[in-house]
Amino acid sequence: MSQDPRLTALAATLPSMVPFVGPEEQERNAGKPFRARLGANESVFGPSPKAIAAMQAEAAQTWKYGDPTSFDLRNAIADFHGVGPENIMVGEGIDTLLGVLVRLFVAQGDAVVTSDGAYPTFNYHVAGFGGILHKVPYTGDFEDPARLIAKAKETSAKLVYIANPDNPMGTVHTPDAIEKMVTKVPDGCLMVLDEAYADFLDEAQIPRIRAENAKVIRFRTFSKAHGLAGARVGYALGSAEIINAFNKVRNHFGMARISQAGALAAVQDRAWLAHVKSEVAAARERIAKIAAENGLEVVPSATNFVAVDCGGDGVFARRVLQALVARGVFVRMPFVAPQDRCIRVSCGRPEDLDVLAEVLPKALADARA
Amino acid sequence: MSQDPRLTALAATLPSMVPFVGPEEQERNAGKPFRARLGANESVFGPSPKAIAAMQAEAAQTWKYGDPTSFDLRNAIADFHGVGPENIMVGEGIDTLLGVLVRLFVAQGDAVVTSDGAYPTFNYHVAGFGGILHKVPYTGDFEDPARLIAKAKETSAKLVYIANPDNPMGTVHTPDAIEKMVTKVPDGCLMVLDEAYADFLDEAQIPRIRAENAKVIRFRTFSKAHGLAGARVGYALGSAEIINAFNKVRNHFGMARISQAGALAAVQDRAWLAHVKSEVAAARERIAKIAAENGLEVVPSATNFVAVDCGGDGVFARRVLQALVARGVFVRMPFVAPQDRCIRVSCGRPEDLDVLAEVLPKALADARA
Repeated sequence: MSQDPRLTALAATLPSMVPFVGPEEQERNAGKPFRARLGANESVFGPSPKAIAAMQAEAAQTWKYGDPTSFDLRNAIADFHGVGPENIMVGEGIDTLLGVLVRLFVAQGDAVVTSDGAYPTFNYHVAGFGGILHKVPYTGDFEDPARLIAKAKETSAKLVYIANPDNPMGTVHTPDAIEKMVTKVPDGCLMVLDEAYADFLDEAQIPRIRAENAKVIRFRTFSKAHGLAGARVGYALGSAEIINAFNKVRNHFGMARISQAGALAAVQDRAWLAHVKSEVAAARERIAKIAAENGLEVVPSATNFVAVDCGGDGVFARRVLQALVARGVFVRMPFVAPQDRCIRVSCGRPEDLDVLAEVLPKALADARA
Repeated sequence: MSQDPRLTALAATLPSMVPFVGPEEQERNAGKPFRARLGANESVFGPSPKAIAAMQAEAAQTWKYGDPTSFDLRNAIADFHGVGPENIMVGEGIDTLLGVLVRLFVAQGDAVVTSDGAYPTFNYHVAGFGGILHKVPYTGDFEDPARLIAKAKETSAKLVYIANPDNPMGTVHTPDAIEKMVTKVPDGCLMVLDEAYADFLDEAQIPRIRAENAKVIRFRTFSKAHGLAGARVGYALGSAEIINAFNKVRNHFGMARISQAGALAAVQDRAWLAHVKSEVAAARERIAKIAAENGLEVVPSATNFVAVDCGGDGVFARRVLQALVARGVFVRMPFVAPQDRCIRVSCGRPEDLDVLAEVLPKALADARA
């Protein structure tokens, strides 16, 4: 398709793309629904029943715009973390918040550092604002704080990104390792700590970082442990100065009212969070067992998904993935070698993993044929 | 508050602001709820009961991300307009879509034309991407196509914005006037036709513009007649080439799943839309009657709100507004003279307008005291 000549010079360089093909599109193409939806690290265990009830109760109120300050939700999140509401910015999922962050800090030509194979949507935003991405490799199946910091210094990066726990591998650093990384962030650089999966950690595994530490900004989400991916609620946790900068460009009325209500109920239901963590832990063990029954190993995971090493290269793992998808199991996989030797399986209910147990041997046979 | 030195040069120039203070914040400050919520042109008549039911049914499914292509909704909207799905881009409200549009077409220093007193959030996006705003005055209480086009030519504008029907005055141009404006858009410029209130028009009042006409892009919303402001669903209608450009930078997974479900049910419930139009027409007459009982005139409106001329200047109208707010009636007003002689009252249910009828004489007395 031709390009509109009125586009900005930057926009003209960007591809019109879809970063991930959604499962609904795959289902439409296949003409049938997936038997198990285990590809997007959604929480198959669902949101808190209190969150569902809150959203249902709010449905008739959707004629009203949501509170642009997300006052109640922001305060509840601040209470959860023991920080002030001025340290919390609520937004339409981490994706949207990362976009705003990049827009605020990355001018065209500015350097940004991440790991090769880390979250593609962050990279999409960097490219979309004309930033220059510098990628360092994983060390083993871990993002490497030392390499990231060294590259940030070398390139005078504005942002350095790390996810802890990591996606797509599920590995987690010790709190000490992350806290040490924060102290090494060079002047002029901001560390972006994506904690989308931190709700699956025990308290002792979470780095202790002062909210007002301006070296770092943290991101959390209701899409994973809270089971509200479809509500689009995430938040940034950082210094009041950085948090307030979001008000320069964010969509003040962007938060859906029903989503605010659901997230408020979710953050206050710690029993449901504990329940989900327990189900996820059981599902991780089951996935490892299913893998072992098929002669495969898994990468130890601190998240609600497990990277299953298919025992070959990326071409082989992709064949396994395609066979799983063809047989009704939605999964995804890492993009970059050697992590792409794995497929990434989200933690499901026992009945979802029964499907995986049934289909994986056939998919491996398909892939080997 | 000091500024982070790591912000981009552009971001550093932008204020941290809230474009509108939401009614919830006003209620928190007052320590009591509004008796009538008539300030944000929300549809007090609510969304279609089918949309409420669809959202309630979808609440338990919010563990799933929404379809990033909004396939079902996009196709239903395309059917509604008799265009192809490639001519429709669904997004998180018109605000978000306007932001993406400005980002795609406006580089720093590029000229953009609008009317002085027109939609502030469009201006916010233009400033946020470094565009230079050029404003022309209203003619009477109408945005002026000829002035807008002349200014677009004079400044070599990338975008020229007009809302039809207009907000905040409620006036509407003939289809001919808008169709003629489209033909006059200069080369290199894109006309932004904000039709947020077009669902309140009769079919014969709506300009006939081919979807593939690349001179113009139109915006519609579920926030007004469809009563789903809190769901955040809007859409752009334009040439496939321009629509596809949104895929360069939009948040592909930004649409809430529950909102997609609600909007899909809403767009298919034409009977509810007709019901709301009829209620709105009755409310407009009632507001005019209440105004007349207080010796005031109204601006004829094609929307779900009425601009009530308070009979003085902007200072006087602001006193009336503040007295209404203090007495429990949430309203807003135009920002710019001479339109700021008015207060803007959203169409409410009979019980909401009973409150207005009771409170307006007292507010006028307060303002005159």
